[in-house]
Amino acid sequence: MLRDKSLEELASIVGRENLLTSGEELLCHGYDAQHIEGLPDAIVVPRSTEEVAGVLRLANRERIPVVPRGAGTGLSGGSVPARGGIVLLLRKMDRVLKIDKGELYAVVQAGVVNKELNDMLVPLGLFYPPDPASYRTSTLGGNIATNAGGPHTLKYGVTRDYVMGLEVVSPTGDIYRTGALTVKSVSGYDMTSLLVGSGGTLGIITEATLRLLPRPEHTETMTASFSAIRKAAEAVTAILASGITPSTMELMDRTTINVVEDFKHLGLPREAEALLLIETDGPRGRAEEEAAAVAAICRGLGADVKSATSTEERERLWEGRRAALPALARLKPTTILEDVTVPRTRIPEMLEAVWRIARREGIEVGVFGHAGDGNLHPTFLVDERDGEEMGRVERAVEEMFMVALGLGGTLSGEHGIGLTKARFLELERGKAGIEIMRRIKRALDPNDILNPGKVFP
Amino acid sequence: MLRDKSLEELASIVGRENLLTSGEELLCHGYDAQHIEGLPDAIVVPRSTEEVAGVLRLANRERIPVVPRGAGTGLSGGSVPARGGIVLLLRKMDRVLKIDKGELYAVVQAGVVNKELNDMLVPLGLFYPPDPASYRTSTLGGNIATNAGGPHTLKYGVTRDYVMGLEVVSPTGDIYRTGALTVKSVSGYDMTSLLVGSGGTLGIITEATLRLLPRPEHTETMTASFSAIRKAAEAVTAILASGITPSTMELMDRTTINVVEDFKHLGLPREAEALLLIETDGPRGRAEEEAAAVAAICRGLGADVKSATSTEERERLWEGRRAALPALARLKPTTILEDVTVPRTRIPEMLEAVWRIARREGIEVGVFGHAGDGNLHPTFLVDERDGEEMGRVERAVEEMFMVALGLGGTLSGEHGIGLTKARFLELERGKAGIEIMRRIKRALDPNDILNPGKVFP
Repeated sequence: MLRDKSLEELASIVGRENLLTSGEELLCHGYDAQHIEGLPDAIVVPRSTEEVAGVLRLANRERIPVVPRGAGTGLSGGSVPARGGIVLLLRKMDRVLKIDKGELYAVVQAGVVNKELNDMLVPLGLFYPPDPASYRTSTLGGNIATNAGGPHTLKYGVTRDYVMGLEVVSPTGDIYRTGALTVKSVSGYDMTSLLVGSGGTLGIITEATLRLLPRPEHTETMTASFSAIRKAAEAVTAILASGITPSTMELMDRTTINVVEDFKHLGLPREAEALLLIETDGPRGRAEEEAAAVAAICRGLGADVKSATSTEERERLWEGRRAALPALARLKPTTILEDVTVPRTRIPEMLEAVWRIARREGIEVGVFGHAGDGNLHPTFLVDERDGEEMGRVERAVEEMFMVALGLGGTLSGEHGIGLTKARFLELERGKAGIEIMRRIKRALDPNDILNPGKVFP
Repeated sequence: MLRDKSLEELASIVGRENLLTSGEELLCHGYDAQHIEGLPDAIVVPRSTEEVAGVLRLANRERIPVVPRGAGTGLSGGSVPARGGIVLLLRKMDRVLKIDKGELYAVVQAGVVNKELNDMLVPLGLFYPPDPASYRTSTLGGNIATNAGGPHTLKYGVTRDYVMGLEVVSPTGDIYRTGALTVKSVSGYDMTSLLVGSGGTLGIITEATLRLLPRPEHTETMTASFSAIRKAAEAVTAILASGITPSTMELMDRTTINVVEDFKHLGLPREAEALLLIETDGPRGRAEEEAAAVAAICRGLGADVKSATSTEERERLWEGRRAALPALARLKPTTILEDVTVPRTRIPEMLEAVWRIARREGIEVGVFGHAGDGNLHPTFLVDERDGEEMGRVERAVEEMFMVALGLGGTLSGEHGIGLTKARFLELERGKAGIEIMRRIKRALDPNDILNPGKVFP
């Protein structure tokens, strides 16, 4: 619990109207998109970097946990106040400070929503590529803290690839800047990359300089359905080996195809073991040429290929992919969305293991994800009120992690370690690897006030 | 000086034949490609990660400075043993451990030469893009420690963009791994990016997993000469704004054009203020189409464009660019090669400032570099035996740094801070920014044994 004196001081830093302590407000900021875990003692809504620094100096002095929060759309408990304390809500720092069309960058505050930036870029013929599924509501600060990916990561890279520099408040309340306005810089350590994906444990990101790209002139969209997952995986490898990088290669397994079809009646091939949604983009001629080559590779491996010939058809093909999670979520009260990632040639082994483990444990699972990145989202459909079933799904998830690591994979492709995977981290990073990260955490946050209990076991 | 007991212990770790202490050997490992600074006490040549760990445990216990060294081709004193101690020469760890054609990665030891890896990749139709000027001799470990760039950085990115994971020995002698075999991973902090470019101050890189790309089918090469640098800079911006990313856009200024022409007689346009060497690559049709669009943009801005129509002509165009540094170096005994980088639209202001400062100080300067990245290599031509002239060049370099930072630039685009720019770092990073980096250095290297005196002032 926060002492009254600390609450008074917080009010004096951010203004009384930006300090929220009612029961309703606390409840509304204690969850993320997958987890409900404990309550904060106060919500603090700073309007400037200086206010953030003031809050952190107080918290550091009084040893109060601080959990930064954008829109709360994370999936690993990273923004959940697991040990109470202050939720630092960055939504009022929501200004786009600069868009430089010549140098191709934007300067934004942490609370700007991903889609808001992209809406401003459309008339300029530019875009900011990272597009997590939450892009309509999630903030750029949260995207950066979690190194968000998305369906277009395959061609365009993850959030880290677009962060040129940051303004950061350290856990002890010092303000510093990282990175440069140039595309190349080796002036000291790459603090930018260290902070991207650090899950709010090393510093509060208040401002970011983001690289932009010219918007591609044209996009071609197709689906390719395969009777066997191994053929779909072969197609993914063959396409990339041909030198073509599609802007997206999304995957749905048979269970997902069928629940989407039950939900949306799009005419999806119910008997297929895997469906790929593939896009190529760029100047019109090139996008068309690459799409033709991709379609030929898929057909050569026995796929049934459907190409969109209009914007409406394109929307229809995407509707199926977008419906994957909501369609699965209709079946059972609780959806456990996972994020294992393997080298892309190992996708068949990973998928077959997920199906096998789920069957053995008697749990329903649908798998969709980003095939080009080897990033799969096995989605377990359960009822959290059924303790026995939850025990079986926990066992299934743990075994799935072990299989992924055994295939040269990683615990998380894009959702992060946060709260829920912290106890598994040592399996991937080893004792020495975790100790090195811990030393960095201790060096920057000696009193462990920033998002305590996250990332580390 | 190392005590006999330490020398004995080093010999027992790496074998007597891998411990070098003769005067000649010490002399031969005390310089880099630009600097001669002090002598090491011993050269240690480990053959395995375990031997590296043993050497670091001894050095950490006895507080002996350790300076990692690949081929010694650096340009900022990073591999120079400024405080004596051990030079850890990684050239015997020179095996390519794996090339995975399906997943597009290679696993290499730190001592593999950049070109050796690429020679192995040619028959597989693959390449490793980062190509610093030293690629024929420099090691991949050194490339990683300095985050090496090169002429093809514009399209393909710097070394950091290709390092998927590392095996590292910490300054206290612990071995750990960073990164993943997958293209996406957010399992804990991005230790890989922190180590890339850290200049051998945070850990010894013993092994790296490097991302590979399919080799482009075709390359188009052209030169475009402009009567005014401002027109050349406009062309660079217009080309990128059109959505085309050439694989390279190299720049030479009038002084450089003329000394190269004196040296090589290639028929370069002596009256031009700036010459761009531009390449596009990819599938043949696309490379040709993009080259035509680039040539049209340049001609529209008044350039004289010459396109290579054969491999011989392409080689001839590159010969001029490659001769830039050797041609300049012929004029005076000492060449001071700088590395300032500015946002690319600021190139004209930066170049004009370099010319003006050099003129005022009465020093000859030729400028070449990577126009697409805003990365310029002003090359001052002096005589190090002339103390008064060296004073003037030092003043010129300092003023140039201030101008670059004022234009939103950085002290170093690709050569690193090393020894020579450490005292300027605070100008760019600020007191708080340096303090954060120092905390990381102290946390990982509590006894300051690893490359002491580098990066930090």
